[in-house]
This record gives sequence, C-alpha cells and structure tokens, in this order.
Amino acid sequence: MANFRPIQVTTDMAIEARDIVRGDAHEEVPGVRVDHKQDQQVEITRVEIFTDEGAHLMGKPQGHYVTLDVPHFRDRDASLRQELTRVLTDQIKDLIPKTVDNTVLVVGLGNWNATPDALGPRVVERILVTRHLSDIVPDDIKERMRPVAAVAPGVLGTTGIETLDMIKGIVDETHPDLVIAVDALAARSLDRLLGSVQIADTGIHPGSGVGNRRQGLSQESLGVPVLAIGVCTVVQAMSIAEEAVHILAQQLADDVKFYKILEELGESNQKGLMQEVLAERLGGLMVTPKEIDLLINDMADVLAESLNRALQPHLDRSEWA
Amino acid sequence: MANFRPIQVTTDMAIEARDIVRGDAHEEVPGVRVDHKQDQQVEITRVEIFTDEGAHLMGKPQGHYVTLDVPHFRDRDASLRQELTRVLTDQIKDLIPKTVDNTVLVVGLGNWNATPDALGPRVVERILVTRHLSDIVPDDIKERMRPVAAVAPGVLGTTGIETLDMIKGIVDETHPDLVIAVDALAARSLDRLLGSVQIADTGIHPGSGVGNRRQGLSQESLGVPVLAIGVCTVVQAMSIAEEAVHILAQQLADDVKFYKILEELGESNQKGLMQEVLAERLGGLMVTPKEIDLLINDMADVLAESLNRALQPHLDRSEWA
Amino acid sequence: MANFRPIQVTTDMAIEARDIVRGDAHEEVPGVRVDHKQDQQVEITRVEIFTDEGAHLMGKPQGHYVTLDVPHFRDRDASLRQELTRVLTDQIKDLIPKTVDNTVLVVGLGNWNATPDALGPRVVERILVTRHLSDIVPDDIKERMRPVAAVAPGVLGTTGIETLDMIKGIVDETHPDLVIAVDALAARSLDRLLGSVQIADTGIHPGSGVGNRRQGLSQESLGVPVLAIGVCTVVQAMSIAEEAVHILAQQLADDVKFYKILEELGESNQKGLMQEVLAERLGGLMVTPKEIDLLINDMADVLAESLNRALQPHLDRSEWA
Amino acid sequence: MANFRPIQVTTDMAIEARDIVRGDAHEEVPGVRVDHKQDQQVEITRVEIFTDEGAHLMGKPQGHYVTLDVPHFRDRDASLRQELTRVLTDQIKDLIPKTVDNTVLVVGLGNWNATPDALGPRVVERILVTRHLSDIVPDDIKERMRPVAAVAPGVLGTTGIETLDMIKGIVDETHPDLVIAVDALAARSLDRLLGSVQIADTGIHPGSGVGNRRQGLSQESLGVPVLAIGVCTVVQAMSIAEEAVHILAQQLADDVKFYKILEELGESNQKGLMQEVLAERLGGLMVTPKEIDLLINDMADVLAESLNRALQPHLDRSEWA
Repeated sequence: MANFRPIQVTTDMAIEARDIVRGDAHEEVPGVRVDHKQDQQVEITRVEIFTDEGAHLMGKPQGHYVTLDVPHFRDRDASLRQELTRVLTDQIKDLIPKTVDNTVLVVGLGNWNATPDALGPRVVERILVTRHLSDIVPDDIKERMRPVAAVAPGVLGTTGIETLDMIKGIVDETHPDLVIAVDALAARSLDRLLGSVQIADTGIHPGSGVGNRRQGLSQESLGVPVLAIGVCTVVQAMSIAEEAVHILAQQLADDVKFYKILEELGESNQKGLMQEVLAERLGGLMVTPKEIDLLINDMADVLAESLNRALQPHLDRSEWA
Repeated sequence: MANFRPIQVTTDMAIEARDIVRGDAHEEVPGVRVDHKQDQQVEITRVEIFTDEGAHLMGKPQGHYVTLDVPHFRDRDASLRQELTRVLTDQIKDLIPKTVDNTVLVVGLGNWNATPDALGPRVVERILVTRHLSDIVPDDIKERMRPVAAVAPGVLGTTGIETLDMIKGIVDETHPDLVIAVDALAARSLDRLLGSVQIADTGIHPGSGVGNRRQGLSQESLGVPVLAIGVCTVVQAMSIAEEAVHILAQQLADDVKFYKILEELGESNQKGLMQEVLAERLGGLMVTPKEIDLLINDMADVLAESLNRALQPHLDRSEWA
Repeated sequence: MANFRPIQVTTDMAIEARDIVRGDAHEEVPGVRVDHKQDQQVEITRVEIFTDEGAHLMGKPQGHYVTLDVPHFRDRDASLRQELTRVLTDQIKDLIPKTVDNTVLVVGLGNWNATPDALGPRVVERILVTRHLSDIVPDDIKERMRPVAAVAPGVLGTTGIETLDMIKGIVDETHPDLVIAVDALAARSLDRLLGSVQIADTGIHPGSGVGNRRQGLSQESLGVPVLAIGVCTVVQAMSIAEEAVHILAQQLADDVKFYKILEELGESNQKGLMQEVLAERLGGLMVTPKEIDLLINDMADVLAESLNRALQPHLDRSEWA
Repeated sequence: MANFRPIQVTTDMAIEARDIVRGDAHEEVPGVRVDHKQDQQVEITRVEIFTDEGAHLMGKPQGHYVTLDVPHFRDRDASLRQELTRVLTDQIKDLIPKTVDNTVLVVGLGNWNATPDALGPRVVERILVTRHLSDIVPDDIKERMRPVAAVAPGVLGTTGIETLDMIKGIVDETHPDLVIAVDALAARSLDRLLGSVQIADTGIHPGSGVGNRRQGLSQESLGVPVLAIGVCTVVQAMSIAEEAVHILAQQLADDVKFYKILEELGESNQKGLMQEVLAERLGGLMVTPKEIDLLINDMADVLAESLNRALQPHLDRSEWA
C-alpha cells in the first residue's frame, strides 16, 4: 500500500496538489475523491477533499475544487471561449449555495498594473453590477434581478490597508449572502498557463495568488460563504527548469546514466537537489506567455460572462448587453 | 435689527452661505462668528457656527470652517502654490484634534474619470501612505512616523456599494483616530473656482460635492472625527447667469430702470425669478476653466504636500521625497 | 434688402454662423443654401457655402456642412442613439468622395485627459482598424474589407510636436485616400451641447475645437480630402451669460426699459457691451453637463458605430462585433 | 586558431552575441573589439564591431555597443539607481554625435498595456519635452535649452500603421538632428534581466524588442542618426531551461555521464537537441521578475533622468524639476 506524505511544494491548484501527493501510487490519496469528465474540448476534474487526513496530505481545506482545463485556450479560438463559458456558467451555478437569494459580492483580487495579476480587476470591470439599481428599474425586472456588487480593492494602489480588512469591512456593512473572489493563480504546469480555471467552495487561502495575498478570504474570515474562481496566469520559473530537465533526461534516457541517477534519487530528493542548486537564481521569477495582455482579456471576458449568466439566470442576455 | 432668514440656496462653502444669509445686514448672523486674516496672498476666513440658531440659518452643522482664498491660483504661479501649501499645512495641523495619535485615514472622494470630480483620487495618489510600513522601517523612523492609510473609493467605478458603506466598513475594520475626507466642491462665486480651499471639522454632508454624494461622512456616521478638505472645482451655470445679469445691470444702472426694478424686487425675489426662468435650461450644467486638468493637478499637489507635512511633522521632507 | 455683414464671433458650427449672420433678415445669406429635413427625432440641416462672398460672410470655407440635431440626446435614451447612428451613417456615406477606394485614416483630435476634449480619442478606440489585417484575413473577407487606420495624436501627451505635423507625416507615409477627423467642438447654443453632430467636407480649420487646435487639417494642408465630424461638448460661459440676459430681458420686457434699451442698442452693440463687461470674468470658462463623462461615451459609441458601418458597407455587422 | 562561426541564436545584446560567438576561444572575435571597465557598482563593456566580417559573425551592424551591467538593480537600492544614472548620462553624452545641435526626438517603443514592454512609453512620459516651448521661455533659458520632442507610438494601441511609418512620417515633418529610440529587450542571461542597459549608435533592428518590432529604426530607414537605448526586461523561457540544465549538469558532473555526453555533443549540438525537445513547449513564453511593474518604473526613472541630463547639459537640474 502506498505511503502518502503531505505535500511539500506550494501550488494553488488542488488537481496539481493531488498529482504531486499521489505520485506514482496506483491508489487515490486517502480522504480525496477525484472525478473526470470531458465536455467537448473542456476537461472537467472534480477534486473533493472530505477528511482531515485528506486536507493534511493535500495542504488544502476540505471542500470541492473543480478544474476546467482547456489546453488550447492560448490559441485564441472564439469557439473555445464559448465552450468554456458554457461549462463554467454551469459549474458556478452548481457551487452557489441554494440558500443564496440576496446580494452577491464579486471581489476581483490583484493589481491592475501588473498584467498577470490584473485578471481580478478586469473581471470586475465587466460584471453586471445591479445592487444600486433596485430603486430605479421597473418592478418586472427588479423581481428577476439578483443584486450584485463588485469591487477590486487592488486598483486602489497602495492604501496601507490589507485587502482582507477592506473586504471584511465592506462585507460587514453590506451583508452579502455570498462572496465570489476572482484571482490570478500560479500553477506548476505549463499546460495550465492561461488554460485552466479552478472553482472552489473553500475560499482563498494565504499565500495563494500571483501577488502576495497575505491573508485568506473564507467563510471563517468573512463570515459568509466564499466561492473562489482562479485562473493560472503564471508559472514559477523553477517549474520550467524542473520540467526542462525532466523532459531532456527522458529523451536521453537510453544513452545516459543521468536519468537513472535522477530516478534513483527519487522524485522528492531530485527536486530537493534542483531547489538547492537553482532556487537562488530562479526564485521570484515567473513565466508568462508573450501575449499575456490579450489572453488576460480573453479570460476576463469568459469569467465575467459566465458570472453574469450564473448570477442572473432570470435576466435575458439581451437585457444587459 | 436685521431679520435673518434661513438660507434657501445650496452652497458647499460656509463663507458663501454666511454672505448670502447676511445679505446687506450690518450685523453678523446670530450664532456665527467670522474672522478675517491676510497672510501674504492668501486670505484666511474663519467661520464658526456655535449655536443651533446659527446652524439653522446657515444650513450647516455647528463647527469651524476655514476658507483659504487665493484669487490668482488659476494663473499657475509656483510661488502662490508654495504660499498656499504653507498656510494650509498650518491650518490642517490646527484642526487635527490633539487626541489623534494613531492612524489617520485619508479618503479621496470623487470619480477620477470626470476631471472636475477627480481631485480626491488625485490627492490620494500623492499621499505618503505609511500604515503598512510599520513592520519594515527602522525603529528610529517608526517612532517619528504617523501611520497613514488612504483610499479613493470612486476609482473603483460602479460597484453597487455606497461610498459611505465602503468607508464605514474600512473604518470599523482599521480603527483610525481620524478620517480626512478630500472632495471637489461646487461654489457659487466664480472667484472661488480653483482658487479656494475650505477645511471644516464637521465632516462632509449629504448633497455636497461635485458628483452626487448621497450620504455624509461625519463623526455621527463613521464614529470617528472627520476633517473635510474641499476645493471648488465647478460653479453652477445658474450662478454664472445670475452674476452676468448682476454685473450688466450695475453697468447700465445710470440709464436703465432694470437695475432699480431688480433692486426693488429684493435679492431673493430677484433670484427666485431667475431660478424660475432659467432653471430648466441651466440646471445640471456646470462651469469649469479650460485648463481644468492642469489646475486639478496643481491643487492636488498643494493638498497632498500640505497633508503629508501636517501628518508627518517629525519626518524630514527629504525622508519621503 | 438685408445688409449682411461678415460674422464677428467664432463658432465651430456653420448652422450657428448662418443664424448669426442672417439675424432677423427674411432672406438667405448670399452664397449660402440651407436645407432642413426631419428624420424622426433627428433634425438634418444642410448648409452649403458656394460662393466666395458666402465664405467671407460666414467666416468658413466653401463646402457642405450637415448638422444633425438631437435635442434630447442628453436624456440618454438608447433609441435616440440608434436613430442618430442610422442617420449619421447615411450622411457619412454620402459625403465620402466616390473616388475613395483605398485606406481611410480616422484621426481623433483632442486630449483624453480632459473629458470634454476626449471625444476624438474615445472614438478612435472604438474604430474597426483593418489596415494591418490585409495579409491575415481570408481572401473572401479581404475583398469586402476597406483598409482603415486610426490614430489619436493627443493621447501621446505632451510631445513637442504639432498635431498637424504628426498627421501630415503619417499621411505622407501611409497615403490614405481620405482623412476623417473627429473633434470636440464649442457651440454657442446650449441646445447643441452634447446634442448636435456636424459633418463637413471642408476639413477642420484653425481655432476650432475645444482645446487649442492651432493649425487646420484640410485638403490644402494634408494633400488628401478631409471629412470633419464634430460634436459640441462645451459652450463658452460667455454664451450662457448672453443667453441668460436675453431670456430674462424678454421675460421682463413689459415692465422694464432694459429690454428696449438692449433692443435699441442692436444685437451686435449689445453683445459688444457684454463682451466688454463680462469677457475678463468669463473668458476661458466653459460650460458642460454634469454627466459629461457618460455623455461623451454615448456619443463616442454613436460616432464609432456610424463610422464603422459607413466605412465597411460590405462587412456584415456580426463580422466585427 | 579558433574557427568562428556566425551566430545562430537571436539576442538583442551585442555583449551576449560576442560571448556566444567567441565560446571558449582564447582570442577575440575577428572585427570585434571589447573593452571592460568597472565604475563602482556599474560594469561598463564597450563592444565595437568594425569590419564586415565582425558584423557577419555577430549578426549585427558595425558600430558601438555599450553595455552597463548592474547585477543588483533588482534589489531596488536607491544608491545603485543614482550610480547607474551618473554613468548612463556620461555614456549617452558620449554617443550623441557632436554635430547634433538642434531637435532631438525621443521615441519610446513598446506597448504600455504589457508591463515588460512598457518601458519605452514610461520613459517618454518622464522626458523633459521642450520643443514647443521655444516661443514661450525667456531668451536666457531658450539659449541654454535644446529642443526635445518625444513620442510613444505604441500607446495608441492598434492603429493599423507600422511604428516605422509613423516615426518616419514624424521625422520627415519635424527634421530632428537625432532620434533616440528606447526599447525593452529580450536577453538570454538571467543576470541581465532588469539589470543591464545597452546603448548603441546603430539604431534598432528588425526582430529586436520584447514585442514584435517588424521593422528597424536606423539611419538608413529614417535618414537621421539613431541612438538606441535598450533594457532587458524579459528572458526567453527557453534560456532558463538551458541554464537550468547547464547548472545542474555541472553540479552532477563527477557522478554522471550526462555532463560528458552534453560536452561531447558540443555546445551548439546540445542546444540544437534542447531546441528540438523543448521549443514547442517553451516557445513564446518569457520570464519576468514578480515585481516587474516596480522595476520597470525604477528603470524608466533612471533612463529619463539620464536622458534629461544628457540632452540639457546647460539647464540646471532645478530648472526642470
């Protein structure tokens, strides 16, 4: 039987954490349930962490994490964006607690001056904000319209106030039923760079995100349920180096002892060696696609459209366009 | 003895309210004390409202209102800006309650997309924000540095959340000792357009400001003292029309009965007539100088520099530049 | 027979110039032809100046000037915007010389930091730029697509280079068949504030525009035909004062000699007197609606949509949205 | 004697090209002269390509390329910025042709929406633009002030016009004596990421820059001398992978045949293998520091301050601050 050890590295993606913890084991990580589904070009992976042991091994709180992988999103194909929008809308609807029947507050984390971290603010710009309209719109529309508010605290620049404090203050004052936090994530795998969306009903936890999110946004800290939607917009340079060595070693495997020695070291020792040798040079560097600016906009379009549809199921699309 | 009637028109400036209520009377408005001083090119007028009757007549809460008038500010003379900065720094220091020894939160009201309303956000950009630095700076500096936070809620665009709610939430979470609210004001007199700063220890009250501030920021609503700093950035088109008629009538006074008839009508009847005739056409229009963008920046420089000096009396100017 | 005198005041609108020159005369200004048409809620006035005398009297070069007036545009009604878009598209198509079958260069004049002057840059942002696509799109589309380029020299900020020099340089290098210049105009009448579009086949002439356009853009200066599209975004404060006095005097006419004296003075002497008395105080001030920022965006939507339709008659609307 | 082969890979930095072409040879690349100097913490390397053979081997035109390396610039130390500013000012002065006594046009290449490519526009924002002031300033200052113009064509977004065409048009119209082009570069070495400035008297050549510069800016294309100032703001992910493999292999050299096999392959075969294996996965990805936004601003401050000093040697620093 496999001997699972708690995860050592940091990744914002539950699916990556699970793959790392599981390694080559032929059984599932204890306390974790994983479910795959392919919907046209979108691969849907549902990771559920349902025991304390699972949470400990995965380094993540119990809850549901749905990953939507669209490997070719970076090709900027409009039909892919439409497919992702459709699937994402359904998944968001699915994870919104049934008890939520009042205001939803969308929080766009991140700093809009740094492109890979600007996803949150750009989604917020595109959200259909309705909370302030309830006194203005006709009754007919009002009945079908959910009150939605949206803030992007990072566009305020340097304020001297922690994001959590700002959001907590706003939540305490406006009493939303649900907070949806949108954030840019760092992934370990190149395949997920601008090609992967994670939705989690556990909120956002310290250390996540592309910038430095020092404090989490969760039911514990805010007092209301927090749905987190994240997109991988950067990969740490360290991961690239590891991947490069791995790929190259595999190619040279027949001729070279290198691969075997690496294999004998075991994956974690091997990573330890690389960490030691490369960390100083590659720490703090991140990898992004050249067209990051366009891709962030594409993704912001998809997320905002999906959120608008999921949050306003009783409004016709033409009523807000 | 003069028969004072409560003010009918709206003005954000206490000095203008007093001039209107007083009219041609040769005595001061009851419950109001006014004090003039000239400091080089800056005219300092201190209006104190100290009784309920004064507050009722003036349409403003009891408290101190200091107006600094610099009629030639629009000429963009650097030495004028320096003089105003010096005087303003002293006045701000003077109005900061002595009990304030912890965090000060600077709030820049207004929307940065509409130039005349962008003063608040532009001041916030220039504020020396220190609250997040206390764990980082050397003890020597830390002792001399007051924690300052700064937010400009209007730069968030349409959020569906009232400014007051957002600020109240942040105040409840971060517990500042004092809020300083910076706002663009509408004045009645052309002479005050981008040439007049008002500092008041009463906070900001509903209906003030260039945009629609629906709710006030004050000790009552926020639970901490609120110092309000306002600059006239627009004049209502209505005021221009009144002023034009007034000036023209004076010029024609010798030849024309018009002036006498206007005089006989009494000032308020006369204004009532103009309101009736012109309101529909001129309501909602405002007057700004052509170089509004540059002037707002000049003023933001002066306000931010004055605030930084007043809030950090123990830091040397070179330590933050 | 009326004795027409050349226009003394400046207005960017041909229709206003004609009304001023004509005054109370019961005949048309010589060398000028005027034609009215109502298309639903859009009033179309076509002014043609066809002799040297007409040009001299009107203070404008010979050519066609079409004004579209939509008095209630400021009410922000979507159907009004659609009507204006439809009419404007037709008028632009009509004024594009038939010989134009290659690149059209859209130039958005003005500075995007000053809201009333930001119309040009905001239109440029929304233009369907196709000139760089000709090597990329399928032949089928390429055949139906007109190459369009678009620049907004004022967004470059302070460059030390005259707008005309920059545009002339770009024209000489890229050889467009037609330049379409979009500009914010100053009107004399409140009714035209954000409610009036002028299209002229004469280009833009010195002194026009809300900012300081020191040099014109015309066939003479650029060597290619220039279509000018202008929208009134400000009214000079001076005009407001005149209008106020005029309206008030009319109201008081029965009781007051003022009106009669003004009448006896004759309109131009009367204006001369006001100029003398008010110019110093009101010069350099301009009047804008409170919601100027939203209205400029509404108008930019209408202009860009009309231009895109007029310039791409063979593309289906869905092909660029 | 070493057998030098023309460079195969692309790098914007002459110093890197020389190191690659030279490889392990113990002699200098023919037609190339290299000169090192240390000025406090700034390492100055002067590469001169002076023969056709040198140009062919290096893949760069004949001319002078000065590299200033400041390895710890990413630590954000103010004194390092001051040292770099001092050295850079001198080097720019040195490379400005003595015949230049009239207008200098500073061109900031790049797109300000994509942080690593925004260096050029951010430098332009900070340039002391004086060309439009000559009629305004007092004669005393005018005599000492060089006319400087500055444009950042990329801030216009999609215009449909090639940058070269726009700049060429402006140059033909305004006749500057010198163009200084500021650009963000891609380097191969991590050590140069936001820590290296290259000044070249050869202009900018196709394929350089972080974005896609399809055409060069040079004396040939513009008709006036072009000084190019570039800063490495990204490193291709491919280079990271190579560097990682190289470092790791060295560490494992004693135990492992891998290094020897790589060695036997020869550097270029080895790179060829990596290209083949990794190119598809890493192509189009780039590496930037996490704090890219702050670092770009630091560098823009240094470049603009150095340019202002070098271009205005007869103005006192206090006259423009």
